Amino acid sequence: MTSAQSSAETYQRIVLVSRPKGVVVPGNFELSTVPRPAGTSLATNEVLVKNIFLSLDPYMRGRMSLARSYALPQPLNQTMLGTTAGVVVASKYAGLKEGDYVTGQLGWAEMGVTTGDKLQPVDTQKIPLTAYLGVLGMPGVTAWYGVNILLNAQPGQTLVVSAASGAVGGVVGQLAKLKGCRVVGIAGGQQKCDYVRDQLGFDACIDYKQARSGQELQALFSAVLPEGIDLLFENVGSSIFDASLFNLNPHAKIALCGMVAGYNGIAEPLKNASKLLTMRATLQGFIVTEHMEIWPQAINELTGLLLNNKLQYRETITEGLAQAPQALIGLLSGQNFGKQLVQLTSNVVPGELCKILT
Amino acid sequence: MTSAQSSAETYQRIVLVSRPKGVVVPGNFELSTVPRPAGTSLATNEVLVKNIFLSLDPYMRGRMSLARSYALPQPLNQTMLGTTAGVVVASKYAGLKEGDYVTGQLGWAEMGVTTGDKLQPVDTQKIPLTAYLGVLGMPGVTAWYGVNILLNAQPGQTLVVSAASGAVGGVVGQLAKLKGCRVVGIAGGQQKCDYVRDQLGFDACIDYKQARSGQELQALFSAVLPEGIDLLFENVGSSIFDASLFNLNPHAKIALCGMVAGYNGIAEPLKNASKLLTMRATLQGFIVTEHMEIWPQAINELTGLLLNNKLQYRETITEGLAQAPQALIGLLSGQNFGKQLVQLTSNVVPGELCKILT
Repeated sequence: MTSAQSSAETYQRIVLVSRPKGVVVPGNFELSTVPRPAGTSLATNEVLVKNIFLSLDPYMRGRMSLARSYALPQPLNQTMLGTTAGVVVASKYAGLKEGDYVTGQLGWAEMGVTTGDKLQPVDTQKIPLTAYLGVLGMPGVTAWYGVNILLNAQPGQTLVVSAASGAVGGVVGQLAKLKGCRVVGIAGGQQKCDYVRDQLGFDACIDYKQARSGQELQALFSAVLPEGIDLLFENVGSSIFDASLFNLNPHAKIALCGMVAGYNGIAEPLKNASKLLTMRATLQGFIVTEHMEIWPQAINELTGLLLNNKLQYRETITEGLAQAPQALIGLLSGQNFGKQLVQLTSNVVPGELCKILT
Repeated sequence: MTSAQSSAETYQRIVLVSRPKGVVVPGNFELSTVPRPAGTSLATNEVLVKNIFLSLDPYMRGRMSLARSYALPQPLNQTMLGTTAGVVVASKYAGLKEGDYVTGQLGWAEMGVTTGDKLQPVDTQKIPLTAYLGVLGMPGVTAWYGVNILLNAQPGQTLVVSAASGAVGGVVGQLAKLKGCRVVGIAGGQQKCDYVRDQLGFDACIDYKQARSGQELQALFSAVLPEGIDLLFENVGSSIFDASLFNLNPHAKIALCGMVAGYNGIAEPLKNASKLLTMRATLQGFIVTEHMEIWPQAINELTGLLLNNKLQYRETITEGLAQAPQALIGLLSGQNFGKQLVQLTSNVVPGELCKILT
């Protein structure tokens, strides 16, 4: 990591300088200082945004590789791609003015210029800015799509979700509880499991770290799931997915959202894939950005639930752009607790994250 | 295998006496001789059928185990379950009379009694009796359901089917060709591959026996499938399924019909399951007997194709009930070529299988 400083004439960004071989390491990234764009030099429809928060998400690992996946690879020596929340500093776009809060895809950088149509204005009067990167952003909509469309959760069904304390998993479980499901989470460690049960209201939580082998994990699952799994929202893959497969019920549905355990190339191969056949399971791999048509309804419903205090969430906020690589590395090994964010500016009014002193 | 003989007063059947540990062995079965039911002792609606052919199918392996699956386990010390084609010897059911040809579930036995509503009368004027156990039976309908309903094959798509020379696979490929797909089969050995290409009209066939490792298999697939896989009809599982997964295209659909490679407990775990996510695949495990509503349409269409000489099939006919266990063992290791049948009576007019001298 090269040390660098931003000034009135420059800003900082992080670029990918090498592709990880297995585990992501800090050396894959480089902090660089680049000239600050002037508000006066904007073209028509362009907007200059000061980023306040970066959203870190597991899918980013996939883009760092060249392997064919749902997204094109992150180009080398360019700003790391990613969703951001920030404030408009200057605008030549009719729909946005200085001081407006927006989300966008400005990447791992302190600021950025884009056209206004690529930014989403957000209302921070009643909802914190960070919520638009989590429960009201891609993670929340991912959960909504899985629970409502792919799994079509019904009262009385048993739904299992892995990475249950994460940005997606936490919403999945809460939405399924609201639909009358029995919800069992899977999380790493007692603290996360307690949170999932006591704060998010899941019926049970399996701490996968209690198991020292795939077989022990399977036994742990079977003990907590004597009635089997009707609906599975899978975020993790590997031996955790395998243990769920072992406990599938006939005609189980699986929303395959992530396989973060394998993103570093260390996934265990699946031993229980035959359950997909014998249980006549339906499995759907998905990425919610391919289903833009459901976003308005999802965001609308999630906003209602949030304002009515029916959706809890938790955030891990890492301070400083330079810490983003380490925060992503932590996220990929489950060190975060809830939504992982990076806060880029220190002049945030404490307890009132939406009021940023620009 | 106990030796036994049938007579005018007795008939022979095969019972399961022990569950296989891994590979099926002849000692799991026993040939037994039981009293022959008299046509005169039938209750109302009962029919006495002399079985002419047994259908042997890979799913039978699953039923021999106690593991929870789509079918209840085959009970020990009872006649092996299975589909049969035969001729009515005596009937107290209004819809059937002596001499009628029928299919039913009479199991591994020279004859059996059942109620008439559990038998399907079949027309052997233009279609051989054996076809009703294969191309016009469960295997054919399985293929039809997969290609038409689950995969919804469209012109120009690339469809891959494993066990391509088998009773199901052969129909899958031919139906997909009729729909304008590019069809690539997977089969074991040059002879089967030649048949699949030259007789069934597939575009290409991969001989999986040419590969000595999973990696070689993957390379073999990639070479024949530069354009990837849009639709996968999976009958085999294990490393063959894995090699297909590696070559999936975005939004690929998978009809998961069988995993015969693992039926003896020797399946390789899946290494490429992450492709289900990154390619946003849809996978559906199924057994066609849960979709009885589509049978009439499927049978109707398949019959039309068969009568118009648009469906080719091949059979391996093993003679004698006592050989059924060995024939099943062969089927589970791919020694059959096309539909595996057991012929129970030797007085069949050669070349005219529908005319049985009862």
